[in-house]
Amino acid sequence: MIILGIDPGLHYCGYSILKKEQSKVILLSCGFLTLSPKETLAQRLSNINVFFDQQIKKYNITDLSLETPFLGKNAQNFLKLGYVRGILYLLANNYNLKINEFTPRQIKLAITGFGGAGKDQVARVILQLFPSIKKPEREDVTDALAVTLCCLWKNNSSLFSIR
Amino acid sequence: MIILGIDPGLHYCGYSILKKEQSKVILLSCGFLTLSPKETLAQRLSNINVFFDQQIKKYNITDLSLETPFLGKNAQNFLKLGYVRGILYLLANNYNLKINEFTPRQIKLAITGFGGAGKDQVARVILQLFPSIKKPEREDVTDALAVTLCCLWKNNSSLFSIR
Repeated sequence: MIILGIDPGLHYCGYSILKKEQSKVILLSCGFLTLSPKETLAQRLSNINVFFDQQIKKYNITDLSLETPFLGKNAQNFLKLGYVRGILYLLANNYNLKINEFTPRQIKLAITGFGGAGKDQVARVILQLFPSIKKPEREDVTDALAVTLCCLWKNNSSLFSIR
Repeated sequence: MIILGIDPGLHYCGYSILKKEQSKVILLSCGFLTLSPKETLAQRLSNINVFFDQQIKKYNITDLSLETPFLGKNAQNFLKLGYVRGILYLLANNYNLKINEFTPRQIKLAITGFGGAGKDQVARVILQLFPSIKKPEREDVTDALAVTLCCLWKNNSSLFSIR
């Protein structure tokens, strides 16, 4: 089981890749893809497609993990998030990835033990669990790690240690 | 100028293809793609991708025409429409298509001369303009023809006849 978790967006896409190996969780990669606002929406979607296509092939991804989106104040942003998710669904289909979705509450509960936890609290727990990574430049990375780890935990109830 | 106009959806995707040749408008194709509710969202998005990829190559499409989406009563449907549009944007980028978007009001105004026209009225005008097509099984087809024709008219102000 090798999970790609993504916090999608049209400016930044945070991502992380975790592998389950026996009782260990191995962090294979994490970071964020930056999308230039100078590029058209279609170009940015294409960049997202190319980048994650490469990651899926490089790491032999088996599972995709995403947060369930909710309509916020801006309907157009919600729609654009749909564009990015459409691309990710297409990739999942092309590579036969299992699609896992979790609500923000499920993710916070899995990571911090409290469904109403703030983003800061999630980030703190993630940084404690993965001491090898320093505080990342953007919260998109810890958010992506949270959705990836949540997927791994939900699929593996056994104890494990992170390395 | 060869325009592919699409009325996107996850159950049916209406489409039409119009070509401008001097002062004539030629209807190259129209119809609708049916997506099985038995298939997953990812599979349906993949079917949409494959189908329109084929159409774009077959007809040497230069322009894509879409209706600007608005948030209706169902936010999840709006998001899913975003998924389909994401795929279409990706195709547009892959084939260097120009993306044209029109509001429902712009389309109705262009076709019927009245921005507040009903779907029936749009369908009636479309069927008069294209007597070669019979009343299609689904309104998605006349809707797609309307968005395609609107794009052609907006880009060509000269008089023309349909054949």
